[in-house]
Amino acid sequence: MSEPWEFTATEGLKAISGGTLSCEGWVASCFERIELRDDTVLAWKYLDRKGALAAARNIDKAGSGGLAGGLPFGVKDIIDTADMPTAYGSSIHHGHLPGRDAGCVAITRAAGGVLLGKTVSTEFGHRFPGETRNPNNPDHTPGGSSSGSAAAVGDFMVPCSYGTQTTGSVIRPAAYCGAIGYKPTYGDINTNGVMPNTPSIDTIGAITRSVEDLALVRSILLEEAIQELKPPPLSDLNIGFYRSPFWNDADKKMQELITNCVECFASAGATVTDVELPNVSRNFEELHATVSGYEFSRTLSWERFNCSDKLSAPLRDGRMREGLETSYERYRECWRRLERQRIETDEFFEGLDVLVTPSATGEAPKGLMTTGNAIFNSTWTALGTPAITLPLFVGPLGLPMGLQLVAGRFKDRKLFDIAQAVMLAHDKGKLLC
Amino acid sequence: MSEPWEFTATEGLKAISGGTLSCEGWVASCFERIELRDDTVLAWKYLDRKGALAAARNIDKAGSGGLAGGLPFGVKDIIDTADMPTAYGSSIHHGHLPGRDAGCVAITRAAGGVLLGKTVSTEFGHRFPGETRNPNNPDHTPGGSSSGSAAAVGDFMVPCSYGTQTTGSVIRPAAYCGAIGYKPTYGDINTNGVMPNTPSIDTIGAITRSVEDLALVRSILLEEAIQELKPPPLSDLNIGFYRSPFWNDADKKMQELITNCVECFASAGATVTDVELPNVSRNFEELHATVSGYEFSRTLSWERFNCSDKLSAPLRDGRMREGLETSYERYRECWRRLERQRIETDEFFEGLDVLVTPSATGEAPKGLMTTGNAIFNSTWTALGTPAITLPLFVGPLGLPMGLQLVAGRFKDRKLFDIAQAVMLAHDKGKLLC
Repeated sequence: MSEPWEFTATEGLKAISGGTLSCEGWVASCFERIELRDDTVLAWKYLDRKGALAAARNIDKAGSGGLAGGLPFGVKDIIDTADMPTAYGSSIHHGHLPGRDAGCVAITRAAGGVLLGKTVSTEFGHRFPGETRNPNNPDHTPGGSSSGSAAAVGDFMVPCSYGTQTTGSVIRPAAYCGAIGYKPTYGDINTNGVMPNTPSIDTIGAITRSVEDLALVRSILLEEAIQELKPPPLSDLNIGFYRSPFWNDADKKMQELITNCVECFASAGATVTDVELPNVSRNFEELHATVSGYEFSRTLSWERFNCSDKLSAPLRDGRMREGLETSYERYRECWRRLERQRIETDEFFEGLDVLVTPSATGEAPKGLMTTGNAIFNSTWTALGTPAITLPLFVGPLGLPMGLQLVAGRFKDRKLFDIAQAVMLAHDKGKLLC
Repeated sequence: MSEPWEFTATEGLKAISGGTLSCEGWVASCFERIELRDDTVLAWKYLDRKGALAAARNIDKAGSGGLAGGLPFGVKDIIDTADMPTAYGSSIHHGHLPGRDAGCVAITRAAGGVLLGKTVSTEFGHRFPGETRNPNNPDHTPGGSSSGSAAAVGDFMVPCSYGTQTTGSVIRPAAYCGAIGYKPTYGDINTNGVMPNTPSIDTIGAITRSVEDLALVRSILLEEAIQELKPPPLSDLNIGFYRSPFWNDADKKMQELITNCVECFASAGATVTDVELPNVSRNFEELHATVSGYEFSRTLSWERFNCSDKLSAPLRDGRMREGLETSYERYRECWRRLERQRIETDEFFEGLDVLVTPSATGEAPKGLMTTGNAIFNSTWTALGTPAITLPLFVGPLGLPMGLQLVAGRFKDRKLFDIAQAVMLAHDKGKLLC
């Protein structure tokens, strides 16, 4: 019999409503897993065992009635919480108590979610890593910036966590940790109470271990009724294979796995076309970096002027300095290109159900000093499209690798359906990956 | 001789650099004015006389070297401050200490600005009024939501203040209080550390008593060198007269004053054309309300779930309820229309230097229970264009009334130049208003 910590969100909630699991039992089991594993993985910045168990008992007693009735979850430590410290991945804000929950936390708790604690973030959601290790091999990075959120879910410490993505901060760590990651359409999930990085691009995302769970989390966060997944037959799909201008940055193994997978889609009857995105060349990366640098350096104004010695050198002398060296005119030129390109990309996706592309350049790199390369993610974050990573592959070092699915903006539900179809085909061995 | 509290920002900074005024003297003089007037006006939620005088003395000693070296300023109490409480206009957050300054505060302080205190906001920047009164007649509203910021500047308690606008929250109160108000292009001023209302629309704005000061404040906030104003001859201008679909909501007196002013522009040689905005009918107001309601109800999720009894009934049962009753699909339909319409409006403004329209429907209404009608403002806030109100008129009750100037997005500097040309013409009696 499975331990409760093994449950996906959907499985656990079904067990609770079926009377075979209590919320307290689920939460306690997650903490057992955390106790067993977190000395190695270091996914959590702060844990509130006592508070979480008390909340769980209350839900067991009263019943929450909400979509998330009893669901244990974790949130990245750049997301504010009323009752737990939020340090934004920086020593500057050590012990800071924000006084209110971010919207995504308040809504999930109101729906019956039980917050276990705060997961490790890189410094202000940028690159400088926290202490988290890859659960599959602690000598490797978990990715970032939602490092702890990805590691905790990938390692079965919690079924669901929230992160944020400004470059590749949900999709990449989820892929590295063997979890499912989801970056919604820009603007779908209100970011109030989240420390901003690049407000024009920042997106709250979710990490789970099933596609059904993503759909559940979206319903929770949008306060809508659960919508049943309707996975289409692969043969109905019009799939774009997008190598991207960054294809040669991907490992040979990644190239091979993705290409093979795309061939499987075609064998299953899908229409597969090689596609290029209008106006996205290697320079597009610079567009993202320019907008992000300009905004990020302003977002951290208080820290810049009052405690810049406590910012990491890579942040202070890298992205922040670049941002301060960018003129308003140059920033706006890039920002306006993005604004138009988002709309053009909607049109591009009208003829396409989904686009497939790598989730990252390969397996999680060895070492903890970098969180890996986000080159396969920043395009979608900047364009505001929804993206999902599915843990379909295993690399030469035995570490997980992801296939990234991307849809047009506002088509997140359709993307779930397709992701579910792909997972089902994968589970049946139909994608010989 | 003028008292220092009478100085505009630019005048005071010139006096400091000329050696005829100390920063401490300026700040102390502002506090004298506050002591004299604020029992009546109630513009300030919190004042830090001791801290401000200490900061001023430090600047006098060290010299700040910054653009704002010695400038007293105030900020709306939905803008976070590290050393002063920030209550967001709600009893829920009474005494809250955010732990860091919002970007606009940190940048202004780093440039040598001296924060005197926090100005009264309506509840969370929505409609439910605070205690502030109109300095021209305390039986009348100062407007909102940046009520205290407008009243404090209009009443000479401080030369410059920051507010925010989601509907008409900077332009309207500035007009009612006889000050100059400026809502920048959406996205120009980073909103980190400001309690969000409607993130897709929220804009930080400034209130001053001269157009030169607006240009100064923009330079401070963008961390750019001061750019000299270059007021063009009125005869060079291509002016659009925009009555708007809401013309009949304006008082007869407002209609008469604006029409007369437009005739003066034409007499001065300007090309004046009656214009209509593409795709803006009376329904446009609903577009704004739909986007705003949906986002606002999510922004205040923590308050909604944890202390909704402490929200005002108009907020809870009005905008918030409407927002919760709006479907995701309807919200996104309106949001997408706005996204496209912002770009279309850029094109509309290509043939036009500036558009003139009322700043509000008339004088500040009597009574303190409403903050007046924002119908002449919400279009520009939603479309993201910059707008300025100039206190050109006096109404039948002896209260100030404003002319609103609007330019295309990203043309804020050009708008300053034109606003300065209009003020100069007005001061010379060339606009027989």
